[in-house]
Amino acid sequence: MPKSVYLAGPEVFLSNAREILDLKIALTREAGLVPISPGDLELPKTDSKWELGLAISAIDEKLMHSADAIIANLTPFRGLAADTGTCFELGFMCAQGKPAFAYTNVKADHGERTRAHFSGVWSTDERGFPRGPDGMMIEDMGFVDNLMLHGGVVNRGGAVVVGDAPVGQELTDMAAFRRVLAIAAERLR
Amino acid sequence: MPKSVYLAGPEVFLSNAREILDLKIALTREAGLVPISPGDLELPKTDSKWELGLAISAIDEKLMHSADAIIANLTPFRGLAADTGTCFELGFMCAQGKPAFAYTNVKADHGERTRAHFSGVWSTDERGFPRGPDGMMIEDMGFVDNLMLHGGVVNRGGAVVVGDAPVGQELTDMAAFRRVLAIAAERLR
Repeated sequence: MPKSVYLAGPEVFLSNAREILDLKIALTREAGLVPISPGDLELPKTDSKWELGLAISAIDEKLMHSADAIIANLTPFRGLAADTGTCFELGFMCAQGKPAFAYTNVKADHGERTRAHFSGVWSTDERGFPRGPDGMMIEDMGFVDNLMLHGGVVNRGGAVVVGDAPVGQELTDMAAFRRVLAIAAERLR
Repeated sequence: MPKSVYLAGPEVFLSNAREILDLKIALTREAGLVPISPGDLELPKTDSKWELGLAISAIDEKLMHSADAIIANLTPFRGLAADTGTCFELGFMCAQGKPAFAYTNVKADHGERTRAHFSGVWSTDERGFPRGPDGMMIEDMGFVDNLMLHGGVVNRGGAVVVGDAPVGQELTDMAAFRRVLAIAAERLR
């Protein structure tokens, strides 16, 4: 029985969402896994956008409960960090003890990106941790994003693949996804 | 037996982290709940910052498994959206079916903040959804952040409190936290 994988990521927001989601779905099938894609749901009829949002959330949670594993796209989305919905979903699957895998299409890690956000201005506190000019700690563990995300994947035996997509293709490039998919297919066999 | 609440939020990064975490802990106790604060952990001794990150992640996951409920601070952090670690933690608790509560200290909702990010330049697609100048969809459900977060809380009977902290006090103001704490204390009684 092939294992199913929930494909979490910000692709649903893309202008060519259907094309990119279909590509990820096809690649997942080719890898011998069953894709579960949140973008596949039929939008339920509701009386307001508020109710529509709640309905989509409930459907996606059900899809996650049905999935055997997750592959989360943690590529930075509209700023420094991963899409918040994807982060929620990664935590959701980790709490169920399911195998978790992640990838990013941006090579610079969380610490590097945060330093760049502060134009490279930072200092080191008495415990040796870097802090930005606003005094706030810069988490700098060599992880792709906040330690709960990267740690959640690694601590349950998953893999985090770091890609390096061409500028402008960070949300559509498939190189890192193909790599993490191959690892997931091997481990879930 | 008083219920315990995991206090998720980006406060651990603040320059006055200890002070703010202690304040949240004290307020939680006053409300008759047992605070479980990720900032309370003793940093484990490890050979590298990489291992330190993994160790903290594992400790925080254990704390979450032990907690009865969560209050997540979804105030935007270094950009448009909530702290990614907090989003992971909210998903982690929701997957366990535990009561979830959230708050933000910023009044503008997710759609408003995203429009502002695009300097107010957006258009409507054929399904009636707003899109930014890059063609990407602007999620605009009236929620404080991505629908998985707001929906996850509301769909399991929790509350999302929207505050309006003075500029510069978005990460330290306690007004919205006090309000959501009162609601959580009432519902968890």
